[in-house]
Amino acid sequence: MKDKLKGNLLVGQSGGPSAVINASLCGIIEEASKHSQIEQIYGMGYGIEGLLHKNLMINLTNLSPSVIKRLYHTPSSILGTCRYKLKEDEYEKVFDILKAHNIRYLFYIGGGDSMSTAHKIDELARGNGYPLRVMGVPKTIDNDLPLTDHSPGYGSAARFNAILTMETGLDGRAMQFPEPVKIIETMGRNTGWVTAAACLGKRKEEDAPHLIYVPERPFIVDKFLSDVENTYRRVGWVLVVACEGLKDTSGELIAADKRELNIDAFGHPELGGVGEYLTELVKDNLKIKARYDKPGTAQRASMTCVSKVDLEEAYLVGKVAVQQAVKGEDGYMVTLVRESTDEYKCSTGLAKLEEVAGKEKYLPDEFINDEANFVTDKYKQYALPLIGEPLPDYLFSFEELK
Amino acid sequence: MKDKLKGNLLVGQSGGPSAVINASLCGIIEEASKHSQIEQIYGMGYGIEGLLHKNLMINLTNLSPSVIKRLYHTPSSILGTCRYKLKEDEYEKVFDILKAHNIRYLFYIGGGDSMSTAHKIDELARGNGYPLRVMGVPKTIDNDLPLTDHSPGYGSAARFNAILTMETGLDGRAMQFPEPVKIIETMGRNTGWVTAAACLGKRKEEDAPHLIYVPERPFIVDKFLSDVENTYRRVGWVLVVACEGLKDTSGELIAADKRELNIDAFGHPELGGVGEYLTELVKDNLKIKARYDKPGTAQRASMTCVSKVDLEEAYLVGKVAVQQAVKGEDGYMVTLVRESTDEYKCSTGLAKLEEVAGKEKYLPDEFINDEANFVTDKYKQYALPLIGEPLPDYLFSFEELK
Repeated sequence: MKDKLKGNLLVGQSGGPSAVINASLCGIIEEASKHSQIEQIYGMGYGIEGLLHKNLMINLTNLSPSVIKRLYHTPSSILGTCRYKLKEDEYEKVFDILKAHNIRYLFYIGGGDSMSTAHKIDELARGNGYPLRVMGVPKTIDNDLPLTDHSPGYGSAARFNAILTMETGLDGRAMQFPEPVKIIETMGRNTGWVTAAACLGKRKEEDAPHLIYVPERPFIVDKFLSDVENTYRRVGWVLVVACEGLKDTSGELIAADKRELNIDAFGHPELGGVGEYLTELVKDNLKIKARYDKPGTAQRASMTCVSKVDLEEAYLVGKVAVQQAVKGEDGYMVTLVRESTDEYKCSTGLAKLEEVAGKEKYLPDEFINDEANFVTDKYKQYALPLIGEPLPDYLFSFEELK
Repeated sequence: MKDKLKGNLLVGQSGGPSAVINASLCGIIEEASKHSQIEQIYGMGYGIEGLLHKNLMINLTNLSPSVIKRLYHTPSSILGTCRYKLKEDEYEKVFDILKAHNIRYLFYIGGGDSMSTAHKIDELARGNGYPLRVMGVPKTIDNDLPLTDHSPGYGSAARFNAILTMETGLDGRAMQFPEPVKIIETMGRNTGWVTAAACLGKRKEEDAPHLIYVPERPFIVDKFLSDVENTYRRVGWVLVVACEGLKDTSGELIAADKRELNIDAFGHPELGGVGEYLTELVKDNLKIKARYDKPGTAQRASMTCVSKVDLEEAYLVGKVAVQQAVKGEDGYMVTLVRESTDEYKCSTGLAKLEEVAGKEKYLPDEFINDEANFVTDKYKQYALPLIGEPLPDYLFSFEELK
């Protein structure tokens, strides 16, 4: 066993917030307070960017139990977050701050880009012979981190979109005469995980959603229009769920705003506009009324639709990150390992930071149907345990009134 | 006391759905089943349009208690709805259908336009000497029906927007470096009731929302831009909530799609686009990143954020409509009468259908601040009792971590 490394702990939250990222913070704080080798617990204000530019350190060592309880149920990143890519000369500066505060445990809660930052700092500490235990704590509603069965944040975003689609579907069915086509634009950048979850409350063929489009397949306008028209003729109304990151056959985003102001620090263009674009396609080509919703932030911020499984797992990965670091592990991201789906059971594992840094995990082929306009039952089996308690037991049509 | 009128009951749902319109239907069904003078209970499929064009009558006489219970908790209009304005020659046809099915009690759950339809049918029945008791049951998330303190549906839409704004605010604060300006586009057509509710979870000056724009005041671009810029400088980030129906000083909608396909049967243009328009204004003029969310349908369909007060009152107005009609009243809409705000207490009243038909109730002047960029404490006092149980007790900033 390695030596007991004594010193302070620093934790940051990075990238887009989620409903459960504060639960991971609670797991870190509560576990850290049990280990005497961890002296002070600090939070970075606004991630690595706030640390670097504002030296924002928030002391979290003696939070009251009532504050921890409220924090557990508070969505979004309480510490503040960033999408900041450190420049080469800034790594040294961050390193100086860590040394100045005797930080020996560094935890970064985030997605692939955040894991890159954590990995880089870890390497630098090794290179400098500065003992520092760096651990990544996974967080992304996009569920695109590799080497983990799923990411904390995803279950709640999935539950949100499943319920949203059920409710929007009930509305769409009721309003089928005046507003036959509804499009929901969902988050997910390059992957269809969040979008796919829209199917989870669907019971019968005629229920919403009717069509799901994910970025793992090229978007073909003619196919989309014939999908919508066929559904409209068959069912009388159509609910489409489409990911913000849809690309055409040449790999170009079908509706991204690519002006300079809208490229983030990691080079990702700001997305959005797919719902409006598809709505116009339907109106112009099929001459039927179409509207779109863009729920946006709510997908990652809704505590009302939180998945209890997700909330507990988010806490767990924070706790395990501390346990592993205290034991002497360094340079890993905690992963979730599915032990069983029938009776859902999940444990944790570790993945090297360099193997998750900046990588993306796509929907596997077997989760997308052959027509590329819906997801498969295999996806449902994968995702249903992650969204927690059963979905609401709504009546879906007046045929059920008996 | 008038004669006991014996016959069948027909109930329709009309206009945009809400989270609690089915609770009104439950109130009607459960109360009607207690009165022997009401023989069969029928629902119109897809409102007056489905009745007229498809003769859709759904028998609701013997629903099982378990179905009624599920119906009470199912958002959106289970019977289907319409936005259909009857043509002169169609009123007679509707009338023939009512006679053919021995309908003696007619209940229409809806807003101002629906009340016009109910009023017209009522007048026609009188003119024809056909005994028919017509009652309007108020429903509109827009809260724009006159002569009632508020409308069932509003409390839940208000609660939804209050929570959405709290959660989007937490997200906005956390993401203030990469995404400083967020705009939420809300429903409400010509009135700011739904939009105003965004303020209900705000505790401190720096909390979201920072700016609220309602259609009761003209939208002035320069004033908006200086509002956003000042808030950005003062707080570091900005959350704006703006109603879809904003108009400029000449009364023109600032962002409506006025193509023929997008005008509904009552002549209302389809709205939407305000969020995108304001976002572009901010990006182009202030050169800071801005994004918008357009939650759309969820505002009227979310059962997860339902107000229990709203749910109970929606049931109540349905029940009272039947009680009054059975007693011999005819040609009224049931209203909600606030008895007390300190300890919230509400009873019911009646308003003549002709006095609510096609009318709109605006936010009173005292509910809007002088700068026309926020609402007042008087509005909060009015609205808080309507959203039911207390809002979530989130931590709002890392300053609260103690």
